[in-house]
Amino acid sequence: MSQSGFAAAPKPPYYAVIFASQRADGGQDYGATADRMVEIAPTMPGFIGVESARGVDGFGITVCYWQDEASIRGWKAQADHRAAQERGKAAWYQHYELRVARVERAYSGPEGR
Amino acid sequence: MSQSGFAAAPKPPYYAVIFASQRADGGQDYGATADRMVEIAPTMPGFIGVESARGVDGFGITVCYWQDEASIRGWKAQADHRAAQERGKAAWYQHYELRVARVERAYSGPEGR
Repeated sequence: MSQSGFAAAPKPPYYAVIFASQRADGGQDYGATADRMVEIAPTMPGFIGVESARGVDGFGITVCYWQDEASIRGWKAQADHRAAQERGKAAWYQHYELRVARVERAYSGPEGR
Repeated sequence: MSQSGFAAAPKPPYYAVIFASQRADGGQDYGATADRMVEIAPTMPGFIGVESARGVDGFGITVCYWQDEASIRGWKAQADHRAAQERGKAAWYQHYELRVARVERAYSGPEGR
């Protein structure tokens, strides 16, 4: 069952790129570019899914799931994404933390509702 | 430098528990319990930090960082947290996905702002 907002992932192991960010003021091109990244990423080899939330304080977390390290490198090097990364550093984010992690196990709930 | 909202983590490897959830309607005790969990977790052995965001649509992601698998098990078994887990399944969440991952590498930015 696929739930709105959740990534439908296979059994572990797979990889998670955890991107926590605090938005800066301004950067009016952010929304359109962010939307475009969400369109392009699923076309990349090894893409599994993405989950994202941002609060009204501008602090957000996006977790993108990939099959392996090679697919993460492929997405990092994708041309439109590279341009977005540069814009992000220059204008969109006050600060970010990006972590690459290997998912070892996974659970979901609530069951039976 | 510690930034508001971000977890100040040591060099990898360490562990991330990625909790993505869609809130259900109701559950008026959610806020107080969530606040209490955020107070208790940092007192547990192996706690590193926590990052959390929830959008106005009720979809949220909380990532809690721990030194090792033993500290994750310790927090999972903590009494107040176990009670909160049961309430979460019964009342607070339409659905959640919980993933345990080993952080392999980390980056931050923007540099020099």
